[in-house]
Amino acid sequence: MAKKADKPKRPKAELPRGFHDTFGEEVLERDRMLSRIAEVYRMHGFDPLETPAIETVESLGKFLPDVDRPMGGVFGFQDDDESWVALRYDMTAPLARVAAQYRQDLPSPYRRYAMGPVWRNEKPGPGRFRQFFQCDADTVGTSTVVADAEICGMLADALQAAGIARDDFVIRINNRKVLNGILEEAGLQGDDEDVRRGIALRAIDKLDRLGEGGVRALLGEGRKDESGDFTTGAKLAEGQIDLLMGFVSAGREDGTATCARLRELVGASEQGIEGVQELETIAEFLDSQGYRAPLAVIDPSVVRGLAYYTGPVYEAELTFDIIDDKGEKRQFGSVAGGGRYDDLVMRFTGQRTPATGVSIGVDRLLAALRARGNATEKKAQGPVVILALERDQMSVYQTIANELRNDGIRAEVYMGGGTNLGKQLKYADKRHAPAAVIIGSQERESGMAQIKDLVLGTQLASEIESNEEWKSQPAQQEIQRSQILAIIRAILDRQSTP
Amino acid sequence: MAKKADKPKRPKAELPRGFHDTFGEEVLERDRMLSRIAEVYRMHGFDPLETPAIETVESLGKFLPDVDRPMGGVFGFQDDDESWVALRYDMTAPLARVAAQYRQDLPSPYRRYAMGPVWRNEKPGPGRFRQFFQCDADTVGTSTVVADAEICGMLADALQAAGIARDDFVIRINNRKVLNGILEEAGLQGDDEDVRRGIALRAIDKLDRLGEGGVRALLGEGRKDESGDFTTGAKLAEGQIDLLMGFVSAGREDGTATCARLRELVGASEQGIEGVQELETIAEFLDSQGYRAPLAVIDPSVVRGLAYYTGPVYEAELTFDIIDDKGEKRQFGSVAGGGRYDDLVMRFTGQRTPATGVSIGVDRLLAALRARGNATEKKAQGPVVILALERDQMSVYQTIANELRNDGIRAEVYMGGGTNLGKQLKYADKRHAPAAVIIGSQERESGMAQIKDLVLGTQLASEIESNEEWKSQPAQQEIQRSQILAIIRAILDRQSTP
Repeated sequence: MAKKADKPKRPKAELPRGFHDTFGEEVLERDRMLSRIAEVYRMHGFDPLETPAIETVESLGKFLPDVDRPMGGVFGFQDDDESWVALRYDMTAPLARVAAQYRQDLPSPYRRYAMGPVWRNEKPGPGRFRQFFQCDADTVGTSTVVADAEICGMLADALQAAGIARDDFVIRINNRKVLNGILEEAGLQGDDEDVRRGIALRAIDKLDRLGEGGVRALLGEGRKDESGDFTTGAKLAEGQIDLLMGFVSAGREDGTATCARLRELVGASEQGIEGVQELETIAEFLDSQGYRAPLAVIDPSVVRGLAYYTGPVYEAELTFDIIDDKGEKRQFGSVAGGGRYDDLVMRFTGQRTPATGVSIGVDRLLAALRARGNATEKKAQGPVVILALERDQMSVYQTIANELRNDGIRAEVYMGGGTNLGKQLKYADKRHAPAAVIIGSQERESGMAQIKDLVLGTQLASEIESNEEWKSQPAQQEIQRSQILAIIRAILDRQSTP
Repeated sequence: MAKKADKPKRPKAELPRGFHDTFGEEVLERDRMLSRIAEVYRMHGFDPLETPAIETVESLGKFLPDVDRPMGGVFGFQDDDESWVALRYDMTAPLARVAAQYRQDLPSPYRRYAMGPVWRNEKPGPGRFRQFFQCDADTVGTSTVVADAEICGMLADALQAAGIARDDFVIRINNRKVLNGILEEAGLQGDDEDVRRGIALRAIDKLDRLGEGGVRALLGEGRKDESGDFTTGAKLAEGQIDLLMGFVSAGREDGTATCARLRELVGASEQGIEGVQELETIAEFLDSQGYRAPLAVIDPSVVRGLAYYTGPVYEAELTFDIIDDKGEKRQFGSVAGGGRYDDLVMRFTGQRTPATGVSIGVDRLLAALRARGNATEKKAQGPVVILALERDQMSVYQTIANELRNDGIRAEVYMGGGTNLGKQLKYADKRHAPAAVIIGSQERESGMAQIKDLVLGTQLASEIESNEEWKSQPAQQEIQRSQILAIIRAILDRQSTP
């Protein structure tokens, strides 16, 4: 033990838990997807905005669903001047700060999009990281729900631009005002009923997962899950529960029919009636723009977790099946969500500044594209590798690489130590190189080069037995030095033909 | 005072000091520049790598130039489990961690590029922020200085791809081994002379700013600056100072001549001789690839601030003049720098893993492009704005916007409150809209639309006096509804013709 302690202490090469690195093609894939989405946003008149990672704790506020811990979920720390700062946990809070700070200079309404990492100081789990990407679009400064509808339509366009087929997703839209109206009708109005309203909303939000029985239990006395844990319910009476469940299942064949049913349910609640009217406007607008059911639907079961929503709420759900971690078939589920938050900017200015917007969960959307095999247009491909078999010929190799690059072909010279052919070919394989250029002393003297088609080579490898045979097989050919570009181009063309 | 205290306390809409927001065209401009640089890197066989913002304090280490404060310059804070974590302050430390952590899986050599924000907990100043962008390219796992030379050449390509003209910059290359050799020759070897070596290096690094006289003073007793502050010097003897100044001014007409002069100066120092040999290899390689002086030069006055460099160091300097904050003409200066750091990965693994790489200061490079008027290909342009003069016609307006978008024209419907024509035109101006589509009740009834060319309109505005005249002027025309796309297209084409 003493011996071990004598060794110099080395840091462990690892990340804090809940963080991860992203390599090569995965980065490119995400960037390609984001730039397609950004182009849709931009075409709709949205401008990019980039805020820093760090904000004051005051301006971030605390709007995460975890209501029990005031700073829970946020990475906060003290700045040099003792003031508290924190890493942004979403793109909406910084936008509210920007809308207040620059309100004299920004156009109103202000349409902006933002893409970048956000940080959540939460317990990490499989596929659940403490830093992840979001991609938001918001319109600040307008109270018309046509702006909400526009964002729903734009979200449909963005998902398709990202590579999700039109019949693989649905935009589901609801309105908090309708929800509040129903709760009012159920007798759950007023500050006294805050807690029960919260429990009821969270219960409805779980319909997908728990089914009608589970939600009814949570609206009533409570529910015991498979592990035996008991969740206390909202303790509503049977009539109240019926009213809420009637609401949840108020969806009809089209927006008009659903809104008509909702109008019955909200009864005399002013807020409820206003909410239904807004949904009617949204449905009409989306219909007129070609986003008809089943692409976009009014769906009373949509709740969305955040407390600050004041009007329409919406989400994009992928409807195709995947096999989950437990080997069970289930729908992919939500990849984007948003809604109207008319009171967030007011925190700073004291003046109501209506706003609405959506956030796409970039990692979930990428996972969905991968699940559908649509992640990337062409297979990941490494550079052509020019082997370095004679250390004093590096400029010659580099000149060949340059010639290929000038023709738009990714290329690199092997820069590792040694001149071992096998090791360098192994490196080329690890790089997923489509081809290798081999010039040893023999080739140099005769003005020739060996070109190895590494894709074909791999295909043939299993069929070939002797080394002699390997040398003569068609994946490798000896050519004139001047032909390198033409032959490599031909190999790449052949490889890209299915 | 009591009254004031009664008001609800509102958070201030502001960022912590030293942080800033980036809007619209500025974000796009940077992204365009970065994607051009990334394409150069990628063509050379470099793959993207994205590490998270947060690392453990141990794996970040501490390699900033500020040697006096161990954690100075870093945003560090305690994680939930009491362990210390910090925001990355550069891209090199995370790369060293990745190279160690994934050493079994990564190809060797591993070429990677990384772009993203880094954080420095330093005193902010004008143009000096605590979060800024870096764009790095590194080769890990090779000891040949051809890899250093390749990065220098690639840096020259990247700067040109970003928009810097070939005769507006120079890549200056030196070698720490030569520097160490000279210091050895000057009798400054050994741990005892650590402090004086540090002072001497920092003095040489300031040649640009202080001139030969200033550097000589700092190598000797010390130097009093304009403000009267005195900096203690390295207290070298006259002969030592002559030797070092001879080194600094050893630059000759080409690499071969400079290396010959350096060979004389390093005398018998083994390290010095090795360093000169490496510089010769680099100069030869760059010459063979067309990066000849004055594009790339061996320059003995290059030092680079970081302590961890072990071999070649290099930087890109922009050679054109700008007028600085004090109204004085000066060269733009350095926009990128790097070098070889063979010992960084060893911190984790105990095994030497040679590496070399460069970091581009993205904000400085953007500032340079702006100074040269090369920042962006086309002038920033807002979307076409379709005015919303009748609230019940929103779908009609949106349909027109869609028609324009489908033809690749950015377009948006005005979504603010009210139906005031002047207010909406003002909004369109604020959006830098090239044109506005105006359909009031009259136009709606007659199946017409007014198209206003806002660029021409602004040009004409000063020349026009009466309202009547304004209406009849050529910047606005009444057209058939079906002609909107064609007319807008014609206006955009006209505007984009110089």
